[in-house]
Amino acid sequence: MNYSFIRWLVGWVLCIEAAFLLIPLALCLVYGEPLAADYLIAIAVTALPGVAMAAKRPKNQAFYAREGFVATALSWIFLSLAGALPFFISGSIPRFVDALFEVVSGFTTTGASILSDVEAMPRSLLFWRSFTHWIGGMGVLVFLLALLPMAGGQSILIMRAESPGPSVGKLVPRLQKTAVYLYGIYLVMTLLEVAILLVGKLDLFSALCISFGTAGTGGFGILNDSFASYSPFVQIVVTVFMFAFGVNFNFYFFLLIRKFRSALAMEEVRGYLLIFLTALALVTVNLMTQGGAGFGYALLHAAFQCSSIMTTTGFSSVDFDLWPTFSKTVLICLMFVGACAGSTGGGIKVSRVLMYFKSIGRELRRMINPRSVTVVRLDGKALESRMIHSVNSWLLAYIAVFFGSMVLVSLDNFDFTTNFSAVAATLNNIGPGLNLVGPTGNFGDYSALSKVVLMFDMLAGRLEIFPLLLMLRPATWRK
Amino acid sequence: MNYSFIRWLVGWVLCIEAAFLLIPLALCLVYGEPLAADYLIAIAVTALPGVAMAAKRPKNQAFYAREGFVATALSWIFLSLAGALPFFISGSIPRFVDALFEVVSGFTTTGASILSDVEAMPRSLLFWRSFTHWIGGMGVLVFLLALLPMAGGQSILIMRAESPGPSVGKLVPRLQKTAVYLYGIYLVMTLLEVAILLVGKLDLFSALCISFGTAGTGGFGILNDSFASYSPFVQIVVTVFMFAFGVNFNFYFFLLIRKFRSALAMEEVRGYLLIFLTALALVTVNLMTQGGAGFGYALLHAAFQCSSIMTTTGFSSVDFDLWPTFSKTVLICLMFVGACAGSTGGGIKVSRVLMYFKSIGRELRRMINPRSVTVVRLDGKALESRMIHSVNSWLLAYIAVFFGSMVLVSLDNFDFTTNFSAVAATLNNIGPGLNLVGPTGNFGDYSALSKVVLMFDMLAGRLEIFPLLLMLRPATWRK
Repeated sequence: MNYSFIRWLVGWVLCIEAAFLLIPLALCLVYGEPLAADYLIAIAVTALPGVAMAAKRPKNQAFYAREGFVATALSWIFLSLAGALPFFISGSIPRFVDALFEVVSGFTTTGASILSDVEAMPRSLLFWRSFTHWIGGMGVLVFLLALLPMAGGQSILIMRAESPGPSVGKLVPRLQKTAVYLYGIYLVMTLLEVAILLVGKLDLFSALCISFGTAGTGGFGILNDSFASYSPFVQIVVTVFMFAFGVNFNFYFFLLIRKFRSALAMEEVRGYLLIFLTALALVTVNLMTQGGAGFGYALLHAAFQCSSIMTTTGFSSVDFDLWPTFSKTVLICLMFVGACAGSTGGGIKVSRVLMYFKSIGRELRRMINPRSVTVVRLDGKALESRMIHSVNSWLLAYIAVFFGSMVLVSLDNFDFTTNFSAVAATLNNIGPGLNLVGPTGNFGDYSALSKVVLMFDMLAGRLEIFPLLLMLRPATWRK
Repeated sequence: MNYSFIRWLVGWVLCIEAAFLLIPLALCLVYGEPLAADYLIAIAVTALPGVAMAAKRPKNQAFYAREGFVATALSWIFLSLAGALPFFISGSIPRFVDALFEVVSGFTTTGASILSDVEAMPRSLLFWRSFTHWIGGMGVLVFLLALLPMAGGQSILIMRAESPGPSVGKLVPRLQKTAVYLYGIYLVMTLLEVAILLVGKLDLFSALCISFGTAGTGGFGILNDSFASYSPFVQIVVTVFMFAFGVNFNFYFFLLIRKFRSALAMEEVRGYLLIFLTALALVTVNLMTQGGAGFGYALLHAAFQCSSIMTTTGFSSVDFDLWPTFSKTVLICLMFVGACAGSTGGGIKVSRVLMYFKSIGRELRRMINPRSVTVVRLDGKALESRMIHSVNSWLLAYIAVFFGSMVLVSLDNFDFTTNFSAVAATLNNIGPGLNLVGPTGNFGDYSALSKVVLMFDMLAGRLEIFPLLLMLRPATWRK
């Protein structure tokens, strides 16, 4: 294991975070909040070890898959530990485990909160809270890759470990340029949303926080009722942008380089749209029939919730826990499907779901015709057996983590629906679940043990399980 | 498709069922129940088409995987349709869909009931209800194979389609003899249980019905409170036998031919025991700490419930819906794990679960060392890639059926826990779930649509999904 390389990388991550923390510091001065000292302490505690670790570039820059996974997992853990400091030092969140939960939830773009009164939080901290979504959405290591020229062709391993989806590739031959493109698209789309929200008469602070939450498909709101009290204009804009940030970013890259046909041919994006429209139709009709809602109301809120849940954002425009069970069940299915690979969204990812359905179809054909050579294709390309195994193993690990978490969390003796949806909402990086952790509830009542388990789930969800599991495996650390 | 072969096989199944129906007919005469005419009609309606279909042995006895699956699925559907007749004709269950639900639940050894008052049912019908468990446990087609010399080596395809587990093999070179051995072991173990229950001062009727329910890992009881009012002796005997019937029958065959070392080396049986003991310890401690129970009470009922749920029997000695959430969550995990392959139990099966965990381990090793050649072994033998694919695809299909059923069932607007556990309890062939379908509830309130969906799930669970899915696939029926 190339420990000095990992040390160096984590050091850089801390330095970048310290730099990001200057923004809420500036804001707190603008708003006249008495938190400047707290931010300065947090920045110092983050920057000092960061600079010390990043100062000496490791001689041996060679690293392999193992270093990639471990460096990524450790980066995210340190990122979270440091990110929690402003909340904890300022006393806004008195218990460190709660502050950590909130920030892990932020960076992993989950949006699950332990706060019962968001509006009581100082504005600069609210900003930081939403900003963590934006950083975590595209990934802090991808940001680092965009910033830092790295020797060797292996830095793709870091990007693979951090980016969601079964197969992460480069958009352009140079990795640094790929990272710049990704962050460029991300930034432009975020600014576009901010601009449109400003047109909708939102103040700049709200527009920024909402856009960060949308872009990272995070879900932290700045009002206690999430999106219920915003105008339909804002709700519609956010619906569209949540959906847009759940699209595989390769799609936007194809548009950018004017390969329109390639963009439209992407099976995953078509599947994503189809699943969304199906869910939208089902929920809308169900809200009108069993829920007694009018068409306009039903369509607006069905679209908002479907877009929010499928992209694993987690904003809510109504308390969907009060919806008919059918609508809730459709939303639960969307929770698991999730957004596209290569987007900022979480969940199982549409491309995996497509592969799974194709695998079932192949198995059925094979059962009838054992000698038939049947291939699973995605975007016209035959998938290697190795890839299919890996995608299947990923699901197995996902299920194991899911059930393991359910068992541990159930020690708190909350009801089954609460626990099930709490694990589903964190492992899929959504945010709110049902019952006690529904849109009007929060995760504050869980014990410290459960919070640690759910934090693990959020990180496992964001980093796609394996980096976290590898960390827990003693063999990973052996020479 | 060799239709005449399928016709012939289904005909035989109906004939056998008509013969079995003579037993409750005799019982109703013994007990002086006024149901003789009803039974005679049911027998006639079953036997006449059966004889007509089975009379002409098909010239072309060649059949392939496709015929095997379709014949199995159709056999089970006709078996259920005919088995429901006594309940429906006698008016004991006035609606046909309810009678069918009860009998599908019986044959598939699920034990989910639509009855709120079991004790009001005539005794001969109660007997038939429990007897369906016994027939379904080892399988009616396996019975037929034991009875009927069949040409060609392909009849293993039928056994594979009906028997649970990822890899069904013969115990001895001749299939008919294998089937005889399996039914022999099954019969002897059932009679042993009957004898021990008689020692425990149970009447013969109760001892038989209970033993049928245990042997098939079914779960229909003959008292409204399932097993709560039986003596601890009976509860302990049933605990042990439920566990025993959840063991892979190859284990008993090895014992029979004195290959004790092979028996004890079976990884699946060891895994089964280990999982059971772990769950037992967890639930016992939890009932003592969070549940406030004494050690003896906790151990007795934890053992009963763990054995009942893991083997997917579904008897209950207490209302475990009132247990702490941790215990309930452990039971839910057991629901999914299920019993051994090659037993009468349902669920995912321990051997598959073992393979899944090994697949995760292999993936972790491969991620660190992409070039490593890593093999998944079970019982010392390397599993073929084809087998692993097939076991994975099975799980994918299982998940797809699970979520699809949840969505359809949710139209009845019951709560999430009820629906989730109803699907889990039927697809895993357990019986009771939680909340409305918990040990003190029943499935009677579900709509006809939901009942059809849950019947599909019971059959899909018993026949391991693919035969039912193949039936729904138009391509299966093409020339």
